[in-house]
Amino acid sequence: MTDLRSVAVWRNGAAVAVPADEAVVTAWDQGLVRGDGAFESVAVLDGGTPHLPAHLARLTRSAALLEIPHPGDDAWRALVGAVLAGWPVDTEGVIRLLLTRGPGDDAPPTALALLAPVPAETVRQRTTGVSVISLSLGVPADFRARAPWLLGGAKTLSYAVNMAAYRHAHSLGADDVVLTSLEGELLEGPTSTVAWAAGGTLHTPPTETGILPGTTVARLFERASAEGWPTARTRATVDDLHAADAVWLLSGVRGAAPVHTLDGVRRGDAGLTSRVRELLAR
Amino acid sequence: MTDLRSVAVWRNGAAVAVPADEAVVTAWDQGLVRGDGAFESVAVLDGGTPHLPAHLARLTRSAALLEIPHPGDDAWRALVGAVLAGWPVDTEGVIRLLLTRGPGDDAPPTALALLAPVPAETVRQRTTGVSVISLSLGVPADFRARAPWLLGGAKTLSYAVNMAAYRHAHSLGADDVVLTSLEGELLEGPTSTVAWAAGGTLHTPPTETGILPGTTVARLFERASAEGWPTARTRATVDDLHAADAVWLLSGVRGAAPVHTLDGVRRGDAGLTSRVRELLAR
Repeated sequence: MTDLRSVAVWRNGAAVAVPADEAVVTAWDQGLVRGDGAFESVAVLDGGTPHLPAHLARLTRSAALLEIPHPGDDAWRALVGAVLAGWPVDTEGVIRLLLTRGPGDDAPPTALALLAPVPAETVRQRTTGVSVISLSLGVPADFRARAPWLLGGAKTLSYAVNMAAYRHAHSLGADDVVLTSLEGELLEGPTSTVAWAAGGTLHTPPTETGILPGTTVARLFERASAEGWPTARTRATVDDLHAADAVWLLSGVRGAAPVHTLDGVRRGDAGLTSRVRELLAR
Repeated sequence: MTDLRSVAVWRNGAAVAVPADEAVVTAWDQGLVRGDGAFESVAVLDGGTPHLPAHLARLTRSAALLEIPHPGDDAWRALVGAVLAGWPVDTEGVIRLLLTRGPGDDAPPTALALLAPVPAETVRQRTTGVSVISLSLGVPADFRARAPWLLGGAKTLSYAVNMAAYRHAHSLGADDVVLTSLEGELLEGPTSTVAWAAGGTLHTPPTETGILPGTTVARLFERASAEGWPTARTRATVDDLHAADAVWLLSGVRGAAPVHTLDGVRRGDAGLTSRVRELLAR
């Protein structure tokens, strides 16, 4: 089987493709040593990246929150072009863009892109839905907005807790997680945005809770509003999800994964998932 | 000026020294992409690593909490030996040991060591003390003990928030940070343990709060107890620090840095720092 993965690094003002298995950062890179950097995961569809602008906007915001100099959107576009060169149009992929503080000592930040096929498990979950458990982050919903050192709203490379939440879910037989605040207020998934339909409206939690501004939920809400499906940023709890008509975890690569089980309780989607998918696919 | 830095990586069951500026991990390494790994910072004194066993024990514990296979202490000892080869005995250094989940797909974890001289600023702070501000983590002190997905007690590579706390302190003209719980209970520094002297006893917060078990505070407390200076794991607040006879931030490389200013208030050390340093130096 061919290795479809590809990698490109930003060097001296140019995107340079490198072999996928070549080492690309030194032991001093603060992205490696401290998880000190930002990233984005960008869907590759039909050989292109239709949602790239929203990801680049968020990466710029993450870099600002982390106070890491940003190489400019043209650098990211060049890196995306470099990893996409030769990519088979019929293969769905995911590009990860990484920006780290670099190795220090006045060296520039590290910027690179990596591209791989979408994992089969991700495709399965998109199709068949996910079993989800709720786990608390232990922080009050209003706390992060007034504590900038907690980096609420920044998509950082420090995802050890996000990955540990997945392992905890898997150990309980679940696929994914909805993180909640100390008071039980809905926040987000470790790598997704929570959305639900209730009372004829599409809902998602407000970003004032310190969650990431989801690129997929933004697209969904814009298109739903345009065709008369009301949308709202709503403070809610896991109980509200149990009572909702449908619940999804939204992310750029997996799309809208319907939640078929929440904390062990089976639930339906009132036939709404196809409508959501249709809106996202436009 | 000679580049004193050195790096060694674990490859096929052996420690291999590599040039310090050589790239050592691929773009797929989960330590880079997700901050998914553990580390230790080990002091190099007189050409040796007298406190290595305590760091290796904590690294084993971090790996277990992260569910990352551990290559065994002999691997770490070989890596330490490899980076120390040729190191000038009169230069104080710091070895960082990194263990990451590796690049995935059944590849082994990444294990490597890097050695550099102790930064001049660290030496300055050890000598002249530090100005510290208190910042809240927003999590109740008892929360992390019952939420294993938050990785309390694991020294992970996901230090973006720790670094952001430093930047926040620096923006306010301070050197360092004491993190507190949601209720204001003392936790730890971003890369240190808090200790204080009050009522004839040495105090430090209990690890049930989710803080790291400090290797330096353990050594200090053992030696202090042995010569009749009582020690205690004490739940306390920033107010208790203001009222204390002396406050230190303890870490393996910087040692005992006296806190000379706390949240803008100057404070003394009742002449106790020299005694603490003498205990640590034995």
